Amino acid sequence: MILYDFVPAPNPRRVRIFLHEKGIEVPTKQIDIMKGEHKKKEYKKASPLSQVPTLELDDGTFITESIAICRYFEALHPEPSLMGDNAEEIAIIEMWQRRFELLLMIGIANTYRHGHPAMAALEDQIKEWSEASRPRVIKMMYWFDKQIEDKEFICLNKFTIADISALVCFDFAKWPKIEIPSDCINLLNYYERLNSRPSAKA
Amino acid sequence: MILYDFVPAPNPRRVRIFLHEKGIEVPTKQIDIMKGEHKKKEYKKASPLSQVPTLELDDGTFITESIAICRYFEALHPEPSLMGDNAEEIAIIEMWQRRFELLLMIGIANTYRHGHPAMAALEDQIKEWSEASRPRVIKMMYWFDKQIEDKEFICLNKFTIADISALVCFDFAKWPKIEIPSDCINLLNYYERLNSRPSAKA
Repeated sequence: MILYDFVPAPNPRRVRIFLHEKGIEVPTKQIDIMKGEHKKKEYKKASPLSQVPTLELDDGTFITESIAICRYFEALHPEPSLMGDNAEEIAIIEMWQRRFELLLMIGIANTYRHGHPAMAALEDQIKEWSEASRPRVIKMMYWFDKQIEDKEFICLNKFTIADISALVCFDFAKWPKIEIPSDCINLLNYYERLNSRPSAKA
Repeated sequence: MILYDFVPAPNPRRVRIFLHEKGIEVPTKQIDIMKGEHKKKEYKKASPLSQVPTLELDDGTFITESIAICRYFEALHPEPSLMGDNAEEIAIIEMWQRRFELLLMIGIANTYRHGHPAMAALEDQIKEWSEASRPRVIKMMYWFDKQIEDKEFICLNKFTIADISALVCFDFAKWPKIEIPSDCINLLNYYERLNSRPSAKA
């Protein structure tokens, strides 16, 4: 088994944090996106759309999409559970994971990919979309700030993959220079709690 | 239990098709998005971000996000399995579900939400993003056309939630007047196969 990884990027980081929390070690191989290694023919055999991360199984099957890779390990190593132990937990965690991903992370990605000079070579940039995405991200941060009030974790009073997605979002937001607003005290404290876990360095 | 639903919209349709394939009946209540019912205070108690669908459980818990709702029913009623029976299946189905969702459905949504006059009242439209999203959707359709060649279903040789997301994408694409290109024969045949299942009318 091998995990095709790129240390600086947010999606492979989700998988690395997940594996660390599970206590699973998987050999990795770096695919340098900034050098265009994800676009090379050899890597496209593993990941036809050049996505990183990709997990190669021992039978030669390739799994792309960070959350799909996490689900693979959750099914093989259910403890500690990061995606829920029963129907209601599974649904609530998925809801929160998707809220971070669809309502925050995609907005951050659009702000960055369509606005940052470093991405001009990789993306047919629509600057208007970057500019429109930025305030939407900040608005969502205020919403999440209210949701995390009086809570240690975003749902079910325990650490889950939804918190992993949250942490990855907050650090990814720094790429297009979006910081958690200074008056989002709950969110800032939440970020610190997540960032102080050993897995945050994975 | 009650499913807050809006018949014309793609995300609640995913849940209805899923339930039909499982043989599960759940009482529904219509939330008319075009009349702004999803923005009303009463509905926001169920779905704070005005998303439809929402599932209300008997204990008063609300689950938003169509895929989270599907996971709830998959866990309670595992047969027929639509999300995988073992780690590898679960991962492969999730990978394909996400490919349709993140690489096709979001592009369709952006083309529609940011371009269509009917959405002007609901969305702060960025026309440039609608125009840039349209050719990306069509490019992805050509990619999916190659992936479905010689396959009846998109993965694992069986019907899964990934196929449900595919069907919903193809019909949703008609909203911003994107049709499957006439030379995407594999994809057109795939659409016909999915659309001829009884669940397609759910």
